[in-house]
Amino acid sequence: MLALAAARLGFDTAILTPEADSPAGRVAAHALVGAYDDPDALAALAGLSDVVTFEFENVPAGVVAHLQVLGAAVAPGPLALATAQDRVTEKNFFRAQGIATVDFVAVDKLADILAGLAQLGTPALLKTRREGYDGKGQAWVTTAAEAEAAFDRIGRAPAILEGRADFVRELSIIAARGREGQTVSYPLTENVHKNGVLHRSTAPAEANAATRAQAETIAQLTLSRLDYVGVAGIELFELADGCLLVNEFAPRVHNSGHWTLDACEVDQFEQHIRAVVGWPLGPTAPFAQAEMLNLLGADVEDWVRLAADPAARLWLYGKHEAVSGRKMGHVTRLRPFQRD
Amino acid sequence: MLALAAARLGFDTAILTPEADSPAGRVAAHALVGAYDDPDALAALAGLSDVVTFEFENVPAGVVAHLQVLGAAVAPGPLALATAQDRVTEKNFFRAQGIATVDFVAVDKLADILAGLAQLGTPALLKTRREGYDGKGQAWVTTAAEAEAAFDRIGRAPAILEGRADFVRELSIIAARGREGQTVSYPLTENVHKNGVLHRSTAPAEANAATRAQAETIAQLTLSRLDYVGVAGIELFELADGCLLVNEFAPRVHNSGHWTLDACEVDQFEQHIRAVVGWPLGPTAPFAQAEMLNLLGADVEDWVRLAADPAARLWLYGKHEAVSGRKMGHVTRLRPFQRD
Repeated sequence: MLALAAARLGFDTAILTPEADSPAGRVAAHALVGAYDDPDALAALAGLSDVVTFEFENVPAGVVAHLQVLGAAVAPGPLALATAQDRVTEKNFFRAQGIATVDFVAVDKLADILAGLAQLGTPALLKTRREGYDGKGQAWVTTAAEAEAAFDRIGRAPAILEGRADFVRELSIIAARGREGQTVSYPLTENVHKNGVLHRSTAPAEANAATRAQAETIAQLTLSRLDYVGVAGIELFELADGCLLVNEFAPRVHNSGHWTLDACEVDQFEQHIRAVVGWPLGPTAPFAQAEMLNLLGADVEDWVRLAADPAARLWLYGKHEAVSGRKMGHVTRLRPFQRD
Repeated sequence: MLALAAARLGFDTAILTPEADSPAGRVAAHALVGAYDDPDALAALAGLSDVVTFEFENVPAGVVAHLQVLGAAVAPGPLALATAQDRVTEKNFFRAQGIATVDFVAVDKLADILAGLAQLGTPALLKTRREGYDGKGQAWVTTAAEAEAAFDRIGRAPAILEGRADFVRELSIIAARGREGQTVSYPLTENVHKNGVLHRSTAPAEANAATRAQAETIAQLTLSRLDYVGVAGIELFELADGCLLVNEFAPRVHNSGHWTLDACEVDQFEQHIRAVVGWPLGPTAPFAQAEMLNLLGADVEDWVRLAADPAARLWLYGKHEAVSGRKMGHVTRLRPFQRD
């Protein structure tokens, strides 16, 4: 979707991906197949590109540094990537800005989990510090036996134990920062997850002015302090008292922003391209109320019905195999704003 | 833009074009470079494709037949292409449906032009019967000397002489017909040409119900009678008495429909893909008033200003050279519909 947005603006795209015959490669002028840290592939990518970006935050941070040594401009930069790649670093970053997160303890050994359970209360959520997305590498634990089993399942890798946030709903804010430091954000999105994976997004979320301002401040502060260039998604928990906690920061276009494709003049993908190439940012106001549903695995077989539904805007990603739980596409339904 | 629309719906695209490194090839899974009638290239295209379409009506009609022999589904079909490729055939087709066109005579020799000038009045417009678009191969003639010079300039090729229509404005209608015969149309567009090339489109055009119904009937009848599958553009002249004359029929997505990219949930490109692959057609109602301006040749150098204008939705086509008069991109501005 980034390559499609770039094409609209007259840019050519080169893709580096480990996957042969990838959906992105099939709409790009150049498709390089290789590991993210393959030096030859990186040299080719740097040679082809005026600016390099990524849509997957688990690209090794060293790759960004390597591309910069090769003379390529990379956006977002290594600070944002390093911050997002380690859940403990990420939470410490937010706390240093005075932005609330869920309570947590860093976990290096089993004893840290046991101490954490006592401190945070149960159940608590054990996650790997690095890698992992869409609920992968995560487990809720209550007892010492569960803690040990969960720690074993992640190979006793460095981890984080997070307290349970007593939130009333999940929100996210998609924001963009340009090369000159200007920051914009889309309206708040309300999200429902199933099995750790985004199921439904509704936008603009119903929210009062204080909540909206709180989210915008979080976005603005985060992107500025990271000297961020591009689009980012920030997942938030809304507490009963209206406070927002940051759950997670994604240094890339975000699934909960896919509704912007159909409900905004400039969607998150065009916005990201605008930011990373140094264009002025575009408007973020939606022209309709949107509801987006992810199509996971076999959900995509519903395409015949969805294609025939005049109210459904269907996006199919061109992935070959509808593996269970895999994001195969999404569908957005628009509703005109109510006249006041 | 067709390839981008196809990608959104999960389809891969293969492009056959005589141009190496073409804008379309750079967003397609397969780019075949060859003449439209190159048998090897056509065999490769047929082998790669479930359905073949075109975005240029001067593809030799024999090519479509050849692809069909190779087993490829082609949409629109050869009847539409043959009708649109010969201006005399085209006008006779419309007349046979009871649809008005400008007065005309077929021209095979100089004497036909001279007789035509007497019959149609002066000035009259000499056009080649075949090829030619965007005003190419056209000349207004009044005197016998001008007639001879103009006929010489087109190499005394078979031609048509058209009387001057005393129209008050130029309109167009973009319509689509699916494989099952269902037909939809976008609202009327008002167009302004400069030097024979589309300059500005405004949509929906202000028009009363009778005019809108007249245009829709023309579109419906035309597409049905040609057993058309896909999107077509029909250029119309509106006379002072409200009658519509067909000026030209384009068996493809049409420049005067580019506004649908930003003002409709399903634009003409997605609509064309839906039609040719046999999907149900999508909705055609715009959610905003649109004005589209073409960026010809050096106009495109204005991109810096346009990229910075939050009200301007910019499309750049990725063509390498901004040759004078060449369509390099377009810009659309949206305006909310007035509340009644």
